[in-house]
Amino acid sequence: MEKCGWCNLTEAEKRWLLSDREYWAVYLADEQDYIGRSIIILKRHCGSLPELQMPEWIEFKQIADELERCLKTALGARLCNWSCLMNSFYKKDVPNPHLHFHVRPRYDKPVVLNGNVYVDAEYGHHYRLSKGVSIPEEDMRELLRLLKSNLHFSVSAGN
Amino acid sequence: MEKCGWCNLTEAEKRWLLSDREYWAVYLADEQDYIGRSIIILKRHCGSLPELQMPEWIEFKQIADELERCLKTALGARLCNWSCLMNSFYKKDVPNPHLHFHVRPRYDKPVVLNGNVYVDAEYGHHYRLSKGVSIPEEDMRELLRLLKSNLHFSVSAGN
Repeated sequence: MEKCGWCNLTEAEKRWLLSDREYWAVYLADEQDYIGRSIIILKRHCGSLPELQMPEWIEFKQIADELERCLKTALGARLCNWSCLMNSFYKKDVPNPHLHFHVRPRYDKPVVLNGNVYVDAEYGHHYRLSKGVSIPEEDMRELLRLLKSNLHFSVSAGN
Repeated sequence: MEKCGWCNLTEAEKRWLLSDREYWAVYLADEQDYIGRSIIILKRHCGSLPELQMPEWIEFKQIADELERCLKTALGARLCNWSCLMNSFYKKDVPNPHLHFHVRPRYDKPVVLNGNVYVDAEYGHHYRLSKGVSIPEEDMRELLRLLKSNLHFSVSAGN
């Protein structure tokens, strides 16, 4: 859809692509308040869960399975928090929601990237909102490399 | 599983059952901070999303579709927030997670139950944590009645 920013991601936004599948694309989130936090974006414009088609739902499960396995193996996540919220779209008078999921890996041990130590201070509790964490560009690149090299899909689409 | 409270719900906890399907049971949440908030509980002991079987995943989609439609139709929800978090289980040294999803309907207009008015003060934003809202028993009963009479599954299981 022409007026949807999620249908028209910029090259800068596409920089953190982890995997491009038939129906979904997976990106590292800009906000790395929980290391490895990612967004799974549907590649067509669709506004709610009930409007998802079954093949899209089935591929999402395959992605979730592999992404959660990868976050546990590559980063040591103990569990993952999954959510489909869509609240921000509804700030506008005429909302134009674009379906996406968030995954926040949760850790009982620190994660170390390039010698920098990241701690999940809220482990065992709901994720904290607006932590306003930013991580160095080089840690973001290391995270991308680490996750991409550990993500393995049995049937590959675009990536 | 013997030691899991979610596998062994008490009769008091089962009081707010909305729908009993083949793989999942749907209950009104005790905490009605967002009116119609419900929990969808897997009927077998399973600890994470990747361990879910595909037939369970497919039935969950059918439930989510119908529940979201019902919350929009019967209560006027504008959107729904879906999540699978599981954090509380990990407070224990030996976590014993039992898979469940939360749905929080979100409203741009007040909901009225038995003349009591409920407002979603955070509409357009992330749900607020620990609002500590409790609603009168008679409103809870009215909510159960309203949702049960509007939930229609094409193929019925237990309910």
